Amino acid sequence: MPMGVTIAVDCMGGDHGPVVTVPAALSFLRSHPDANAILVGREEAIRPLLGAVAADFGSRLRLQPASEVVAMDDPPAIAMRTKKDSSMRVAIDLVKAGTADAAVSAGNTGALMAISRFVLKTLAGIDRPAIATILPSMKGHTYMLDLGANVDCSAEHLLQFGIMGAMLVAAIEHKDRPSVGLLNIGEEAIKGNDVVKEAGELLRGSGLNFHGNVEGNDIYEGTVDVVVCDGFVGNVALKTSEGLAQMLGAFLKEEFGRSLPAKLMGLIALPVLKRFKRRVDHRLYNGAPLLGLRGVVLKSHGSADALAFANALSRAAEAASNRLIERISERMASMNEVKA
Amino acid sequence: MPMGVTIAVDCMGGDHGPVVTVPAALSFLRSHPDANAILVGREEAIRPLLGAVAADFGSRLRLQPASEVVAMDDPPAIAMRTKKDSSMRVAIDLVKAGTADAAVSAGNTGALMAISRFVLKTLAGIDRPAIATILPSMKGHTYMLDLGANVDCSAEHLLQFGIMGAMLVAAIEHKDRPSVGLLNIGEEAIKGNDVVKEAGELLRGSGLNFHGNVEGNDIYEGTVDVVVCDGFVGNVALKTSEGLAQMLGAFLKEEFGRSLPAKLMGLIALPVLKRFKRRVDHRLYNGAPLLGLRGVVLKSHGSADALAFANALSRAAEAASNRLIERISERMASMNEVKA
Repeated sequence: MPMGVTIAVDCMGGDHGPVVTVPAALSFLRSHPDANAILVGREEAIRPLLGAVAADFGSRLRLQPASEVVAMDDPPAIAMRTKKDSSMRVAIDLVKAGTADAAVSAGNTGALMAISRFVLKTLAGIDRPAIATILPSMKGHTYMLDLGANVDCSAEHLLQFGIMGAMLVAAIEHKDRPSVGLLNIGEEAIKGNDVVKEAGELLRGSGLNFHGNVEGNDIYEGTVDVVVCDGFVGNVALKTSEGLAQMLGAFLKEEFGRSLPAKLMGLIALPVLKRFKRRVDHRLYNGAPLLGLRGVVLKSHGSADALAFANALSRAAEAASNRLIERISERMASMNEVKA
Repeated sequence: MPMGVTIAVDCMGGDHGPVVTVPAALSFLRSHPDANAILVGREEAIRPLLGAVAADFGSRLRLQPASEVVAMDDPPAIAMRTKKDSSMRVAIDLVKAGTADAAVSAGNTGALMAISRFVLKTLAGIDRPAIATILPSMKGHTYMLDLGANVDCSAEHLLQFGIMGAMLVAAIEHKDRPSVGLLNIGEEAIKGNDVVKEAGELLRGSGLNFHGNVEGNDIYEGTVDVVVCDGFVGNVALKTSEGLAQMLGAFLKEEFGRSLPAKLMGLIALPVLKRFKRRVDHRLYNGAPLLGLRGVVLKSHGSADALAFANALSRAAEAASNRLIERISERMASMNEVKA
């Protein structure tokens, strides 16, 4: 058995497939000298992309054939039931078997969640797995969950998201007691709906470092490490952010392209503008952990390039080597002891 | 009676009070030669700010004394019951009496909504008033509602928001059949919760120009004229946007301040950066209509400066002179005829 953490890479998933995932895996192996990668997918698509460098990694790099591919528009149930030799399924099977410590896929989110849940099962005390995202903030990073399809959440679900999010930050950011905020609205008259109010009570009594309610602006102000919300609200917050960032970028580009003097000014300011762009580069934040499962699975953005996909692989390695799953299940166990 | 539209200005509301609202009203009268303004509040606070120019406006400018002020932290019910001579209350009373065509206040949102609802009442067929906001988009403006405190909405409420939003855009932007989108999430497996699904059905059968579901990014892409959501989701989307814009602005400033060369580059690019800033200046978007009432009321941001507050006054004049209330009530009546 190789030393260090082993990542199962679904090479066929995402908009670009092996052209992105294979170079990303090689770059990951270069930057993580202790880690191993299992490239999962169609051999004839992967091997030509490995080239001569593959030999350098010796046993750290393996290829695991899988004959099928989950399409971006496959219904999750169909992908799960009929494509048992898909690269996505085989990658997750490797985690289940203990051969890999984590799986990363840029494929169909719904299918990834369904297959992960079916193969790995949820941890004791977790009703529904969640998806977390990592966002830049004025103070570093903010983790937000749920970004999955948990649209009708109970207060108990939100509490579980808080626990999973805190353990994720503990594992990835090495923070002892990450702060947790509950996304709510600021209107004094009626602060949030009943579910959110009840979730606040549960989080307050949970033993987590619960900060209380936060509002949308707190996500980017970095008020807390973890922002908890249901999947509907989380999705809207994330997509709204993407739309706004895109619009501001387009406006900035338009203004710098409006006239010859403006173009010259843009050219002169380019080094600064580039540094600004790098700082908010969404590729740095690629790799959304699926939480609440008996195994580490990360979802990469479908349109990820090699840099972004390699970041998702690094994040998976970090989560797996810092005992993400054990942290969550220990925390859940101690919660249930208190209750019992 | 004076000609043209008359706006009742709550001069005491907001973080700055008369120092902002009075100059804004004068600037509004200058740019709207047909309009009239009634300045409501403490005479001793308002009169010194009028100066000699006030005489130029003759009967177009009136002062309506009101002895009390609703504080930003007054509970709405208290403000409504105990402060019957507040500038906010008197301004709304003027609309009720038909003396003014619209009221604008930068004061306490909850109190403004409670007093407006109590004094003016809701239109036939409207269960709950809503607050709409105007946002910049790649294609112009997007109107989003609800931004009020309607956190537990039924499908019927969302339908009513759609109708009110469409009539608002018809009145203010002079669009015949504004397009309406329902804010939802893109996850294929479970598209939104039950309420949103049902609201989609209602909107599809409403006779409005219903575009279907939209996602968070569509707000800034300008996919539709009106984005409908409940008050919780709307608040999160707006506050998240504010936080992101603030963070990006701070990062841009930091990068241009990082070193002497960067500072020089920033100085050179300043004209373009300023034009960019003007384009997304939130002051242009100040003035959130309270919809569903038997009278036009607009909420200005509490921290508005004179430019921002004057924009809210212009928007109120536009809404009132283009029959906003009549448009909504006619539409509601025709909806109910179809049902009956």
